[in-house]
Amino acid sequence: MTAAALTELRDCLGAGAVLTAPEDRIAYETGARYDRGRALAVLRPASTAEVAAAVRIAVRRGLHLIPQGANTGLVAGSTPDDSGAQVILSLERLKSCFEPDFDNRSLHLGAGHRLSDVNARLAPEGLFFPIDLGADPSVGGMIATNTGGARFLRYGDVRANLLGVTVVLADEAGTILTLGGPLHKNNTGVDWKQLFTGTSGAFGIIAEAVLKLHPLPGDQAAAILVPASGAAVLPLLRRMEAALGPALTAFEGMSGPAMQAALDHVPSLRDPFGGAVPDYAILAEVSTPRPGAETLLGEVLERLLEEEPDLLADARFGAHERTWALRHALSEGVKAKGRLIAFDLSFRRGDIMRFCEEMKAELPAHFPGITICDFGHIGDGGVHFNLVADPASPLATDPEQELRLRDMVFDRVVTRFGGSFSAEHAIGRKNRRWYEIYTPDAERRLSRALSAATSPAGLGAVSFA
Amino acid sequence: MTAAALTELRDCLGAGAVLTAPEDRIAYETGARYDRGRALAVLRPASTAEVAAAVRIAVRRGLHLIPQGANTGLVAGSTPDDSGAQVILSLERLKSCFEPDFDNRSLHLGAGHRLSDVNARLAPEGLFFPIDLGADPSVGGMIATNTGGARFLRYGDVRANLLGVTVVLADEAGTILTLGGPLHKNNTGVDWKQLFTGTSGAFGIIAEAVLKLHPLPGDQAAAILVPASGAAVLPLLRRMEAALGPALTAFEGMSGPAMQAALDHVPSLRDPFGGAVPDYAILAEVSTPRPGAETLLGEVLERLLEEEPDLLADARFGAHERTWALRHALSEGVKAKGRLIAFDLSFRRGDIMRFCEEMKAELPAHFPGITICDFGHIGDGGVHFNLVADPASPLATDPEQELRLRDMVFDRVVTRFGGSFSAEHAIGRKNRRWYEIYTPDAERRLSRALSAATSPAGLGAVSFA
Repeated sequence: MTAAALTELRDCLGAGAVLTAPEDRIAYETGARYDRGRALAVLRPASTAEVAAAVRIAVRRGLHLIPQGANTGLVAGSTPDDSGAQVILSLERLKSCFEPDFDNRSLHLGAGHRLSDVNARLAPEGLFFPIDLGADPSVGGMIATNTGGARFLRYGDVRANLLGVTVVLADEAGTILTLGGPLHKNNTGVDWKQLFTGTSGAFGIIAEAVLKLHPLPGDQAAAILVPASGAAVLPLLRRMEAALGPALTAFEGMSGPAMQAALDHVPSLRDPFGGAVPDYAILAEVSTPRPGAETLLGEVLERLLEEEPDLLADARFGAHERTWALRHALSEGVKAKGRLIAFDLSFRRGDIMRFCEEMKAELPAHFPGITICDFGHIGDGGVHFNLVADPASPLATDPEQELRLRDMVFDRVVTRFGGSFSAEHAIGRKNRRWYEIYTPDAERRLSRALSAATSPAGLGAVSFA
Repeated sequence: MTAAALTELRDCLGAGAVLTAPEDRIAYETGARYDRGRALAVLRPASTAEVAAAVRIAVRRGLHLIPQGANTGLVAGSTPDDSGAQVILSLERLKSCFEPDFDNRSLHLGAGHRLSDVNARLAPEGLFFPIDLGADPSVGGMIATNTGGARFLRYGDVRANLLGVTVVLADEAGTILTLGGPLHKNNTGVDWKQLFTGTSGAFGIIAEAVLKLHPLPGDQAAAILVPASGAAVLPLLRRMEAALGPALTAFEGMSGPAMQAALDHVPSLRDPFGGAVPDYAILAEVSTPRPGAETLLGEVLERLLEEEPDLLADARFGAHERTWALRHALSEGVKAKGRLIAFDLSFRRGDIMRFCEEMKAELPAHFPGITICDFGHIGDGGVHFNLVADPASPLATDPEQELRLRDMVFDRVVTRFGGSFSAEHAIGRKNRRWYEIYTPDAERRLSRALSAATSPAGLGAVSFA
């Protein structure tokens, strides 16, 4: 029966669009972090209509589809389980549509386009899609995770910059729904695209999108700030927001251990601190339409250094790219330091530093051999609370220990601080355990109703029901 | 049976919170434009718990509730029909909660607070909720209509500034759901608050909200621009967006007839054109964190006047408030001019002027005695396409004529231009006819499923099923 299904899929999509050999499947089966599954096959449709055709066959044959973009997600939301029965539906070939409307600052495009390609093609018109990430995801994947990134403070998440989607439902008809479109403003009913955003493809396969574009800044400048204390970080952010308004495009926190790990393990980095890495530093970025970003940021920092010595201990300008290089190297540095146990958390902005302080005081006693290398997006309350376990620590090898650690951290985050256990990575197999623990029954009941009404055949790596 | 229900409601909410006398009901039964219904009673609960208690009684007694905020909506979405059987549930007393978190730039509050009060209370902290409207709606009403306003270009709509809601469902239990909260970033499942935003209270009663706040600009300046032609409006907007980025906080179009109506009928207005009102003008506003808004706008306009005479014919600065006074008077002026037939439309930005040109060429032939007095939010594609009928025209008195006109305009908007028949007023009894015409069956099927899963007893002035 499986063989018959594959034959039917090959007849429909073309033999080259149905991969079954293990060496062809492996890149699609392997996630960017942690996960590795096994798929029956990988489908590579080239159009929305082909996605719908593949879905019809899969639904009729009882095959469970896992939509996959560029497979850069970090929570096993786009890879199959290890049953060998699930089928990956890769959206990487959905690239034929690329229709910008510059007057409208919008872009209709296939879900397979990569973020870097989109922005390279828009740059000559002075426009861009303002999501800023270390990875290079596809448009569909960004929507399925509602990703945020380093300039959320100024531009918001994908949801805030999404005008429309075309989704294919996992029903017998392979229904194609176009929800929203190029209009910036439209209130003629339920905004259904919202329910397909950030939900890991569980309710429908995102095949096309209409994105909202922004004018590219003409100038940018960044500085590394050393706050006088952890308690100074939020007052500093508020002063800078008041002084700079939307010109403040990033306010990224970096803990001493995270910076040290980057400096130790990324040889190309230059140390802006001359060896004396502080406990905490902030990368602040200013963007302006015309030249003058550095002057503007310089004026504000000078005033702060003068008037608020209790808040700001030091501020250093560097070349813009070199300044960001430190921030971007944190992830690599932390990974190289030891066994990484990463958390993608968010809080009310005023709670981030408090949470980190509490954890620094408590965690090492429970879990010896751990270093807290947190960094993140102070401006939007997000923190990559990354822990590195010494190779000798039980955490480095014992999955039960890691689970105990995660349960303890998430309980603190959600129960005590009202924070989020997934700020910008969404839900996949790797964190669904905590979705079960923390999601009220009433919301899961709504998810079941939505699921039954959209994709009754089931879809994706996780269910929200 | 009705008497028993009212007694039960009085016992639950207190006698003063259940209004039945016609003179007490009338303000709640009468909409801000067009509509006038008749209610069995008006309920005025003072807390979320009282809303839930009232809902439980209403559901058990089979009473249909119409949630109502400040009743400033324009499409009959918050008033009862004329059956005399529906019960208004006014949220105006939901004001006890007002909990700002300044570090987090968020505000948890009851749905009954008015926009003007919210911003007056936030101003001393240098923060505000950035929706800018002529009316003074309640927080709950703004969410139910997902209103936009004059600074959408910079800050987006209510949805873009909404972090959480607490809703009461019309089910037997009067279920209270808290969806979202103070977190700026959270992707742990379906973002259910979206379903209750812009849907006129049909899925649940909005009792509380958490709003995202923004730093108050320190300085603002506005100018009236006269574009060289209709075709110059969009290129002008794009030049100004590139030059000003997020400092451009409004770009509002005003047609000659709309301005003339305001100047004719609003005596306090000063004519910035010295009697020679142009065919079209634009109010452009610049906001900056610190003093310098007028200098910045002046520099940009000077360069445009010099370098782009084909785009910009003239630009006049005036005192900031006096400049806005003209824009704000358009609505009153148009209303005073004759019988108003208003349309709240939106388009891809490049289509607004084209649509208006087409209508100017065609409408008068079909509907003699009509003047097109359009104005609106060019920056976000919205246009208040307001028509004024001469008292002698059949349109002024014949509802059939008006319906024919509306059908014709909406068909052009939606079918030919892919525009919206309700840009920022949402759906009420007055425009549900076009929801029926233009909403695909698949979306209505989803609405039925979600309606059954949220508020099976039915709720609100309109259903989306």
